[in-house]
Amino acid sequence: MNPTPPAALSEILVVVEVLATLAFALSGLLAAARQRLDAVGVCVVTGLAAFGGGTLRDVLLDRRPFFWVEHSAWLWVILGLSAAAMALMRVRHFAPTERAMQWPDALGLGLFTANGTQIALEQGLPAIVAVLMGLVTAVFGGVLRDIVCNEVPRAFSDHRPYAICAFFGGWTLVGAQALGAPGWLGLLLATVVAAGLRAAAVWADYELPRWEPGAAE
Amino acid sequence: MNPTPPAALSEILVVVEVLATLAFALSGLLAAARQRLDAVGVCVVTGLAAFGGGTLRDVLLDRRPFFWVEHSAWLWVILGLSAAAMALMRVRHFAPTERAMQWPDALGLGLFTANGTQIALEQGLPAIVAVLMGLVTAVFGGVLRDIVCNEVPRAFSDHRPYAICAFFGGWTLVGAQALGAPGWLGLLLATVVAAGLRAAAVWADYELPRWEPGAAE
Amino acid sequence: MNPTPPAALSEILVVVEVLATLAFALSGLLAAARQRLDAVGVCVVTGLAAFGGGTLRDVLLDRRPFFWVEHSAWLWVILGLSAAAMALMRVRHFAPTERAMQWPDALGLGLFTANGTQIALEQGLPAIVAVLMGLVTAVFGGVLRDIVCNEVPRAFSDHRPYAICAFFGGWTLVGAQALGAPGWLGLLLATVVAAGLRAAAVWADYELPRWEPGAAE
Repeated sequence: MNPTPPAALSEILVVVEVLATLAFALSGLLAAARQRLDAVGVCVVTGLAAFGGGTLRDVLLDRRPFFWVEHSAWLWVILGLSAAAMALMRVRHFAPTERAMQWPDALGLGLFTANGTQIALEQGLPAIVAVLMGLVTAVFGGVLRDIVCNEVPRAFSDHRPYAICAFFGGWTLVGAQALGAPGWLGLLLATVVAAGLRAAAVWADYELPRWEPGAAE
Repeated sequence: MNPTPPAALSEILVVVEVLATLAFALSGLLAAARQRLDAVGVCVVTGLAAFGGGTLRDVLLDRRPFFWVEHSAWLWVILGLSAAAMALMRVRHFAPTERAMQWPDALGLGLFTANGTQIALEQGLPAIVAVLMGLVTAVFGGVLRDIVCNEVPRAFSDHRPYAICAFFGGWTLVGAQALGAPGWLGLLLATVVAAGLRAAAVWADYELPRWEPGAAE
Repeated sequence: MNPTPPAALSEILVVVEVLATLAFALSGLLAAARQRLDAVGVCVVTGLAAFGGGTLRDVLLDRRPFFWVEHSAWLWVILGLSAAAMALMRVRHFAPTERAMQWPDALGLGLFTANGTQIALEQGLPAIVAVLMGLVTAVFGGVLRDIVCNEVPRAFSDHRPYAICAFFGGWTLVGAQALGAPGWLGLLLATVVAAGLRAAAVWADYELPRWEPGAAE
């Protein structure tokens, strides 16, 4: 039911989680800077963006300890990053644009998609459930970040593809695994597909077709 | 502590959960259509409305696997329903009114009230806790649906009774069980009471008395 | 990993949880009165404020049963309090100011900080994680209360220190324990520090410095 992955892959998964956490932390920092939050707000938004998705994944999969409990040093890293960023901003004028935060956001989306899907597959869950878990892991940190910044979550409101990138990324991992690809390759492909699709959509300003009742035909 | 119910009743509970899931999925579809969400938004809102309440119930009761993990085929059904609805809307003009979505919403409310209360009672929880679990199961899917549609949740904002219908429905189940009624009858009565009260309130446009400080006397 | 505390301390913890629950219930009642919610809304807001923080703490720490499941009589107390408050308001004019609800809110903040941090420490979690759990316990009930009242959560929006008071309170408990102080003293000190800092900040109308890019230097 719950086969232990080879040590190498579980170590790669931790690296992926760290990178995803840092990418979302950066997107949270930029979002907080744009909103001119106070010191506590910066830490809260950065921390929620960094750890929110992984924590919801672990609650849904009933995994303990959480990443930030097992590796609690990362809490200090996030606090330190927030402090450093605020100190930096004080001495240099820096007004991040909305676009700036979309690149780390896309990267975190890809990394958490791969990570969440892989962890769910290792628990023996069906493919569609694993893909959904990857999607939730990838999307939820950003949703919390936007809610606390008092914006409508980007994942739901901008009509550019977001969750759907995670959806395709997750299926890439499932497909790679079904074809017998090594674990690291599946993770890499899923990350590249999900982050790449999102980055391309932001780059090209592509919007999903809306539901216009009676518009066609 | 956790007596297994007779097989028949646990099968009825699955049927109730399926019907409640479909009713809320329909309310989510109608809500998404009213908001002109894009394809992803339709699937997200429909899925959250369908599975949100049951998932929160399972997290609170520490039950695993979730309904949509054990019966993962229903994820495909929700995806298919969303796609079919969007295809249908494209070829026929169809503008659902706010009222239209209140009927499936009331039905889902009743079904999830019965389902959530029964499951909590089977875990040996006190009656008041079981009623509350039924209420949470019934209300939370709709709350998520409304939040994602960027509306103030109907359950809190319209002054028509909503949670209170689930409250009375839950007590109906507790009472039926205390009187020795068969399991299916308790479920049926609770569903009828909760859904009926809500439908009657919508029909009659009944509003709860507000808290007007110093208004009376 | 999970040493049982001496009976006396675990009883003190229950008392602290009861007091914190009542303090937040009162803040919820006042918030609901200010918003002129209907009868159900009053119960919902009061209940969420009272039990929200402790429930999230228990979900994160994977503790069962919840406080309101083990001590389900308190659900009746909250219902009774809500009914009594509404009856009282009907016969006497009473318009609570926004300030009025900040005193019970500060008290609940302090009590839940001490309670949540202590419970996490008893589970053998690292100090930084325990402090964070105390903070989450203390802050989340009020956040839910404000969201349901359709306000931006006070904890994030007013620029007066809130979460940071819980942060210092939690470290006070960790420090007291490290210095070998008896359990009740650590709880008391943490409560006084967190509630006192918050009350002082409200009293003095102190605001945290905002992040003004390039403002200084």
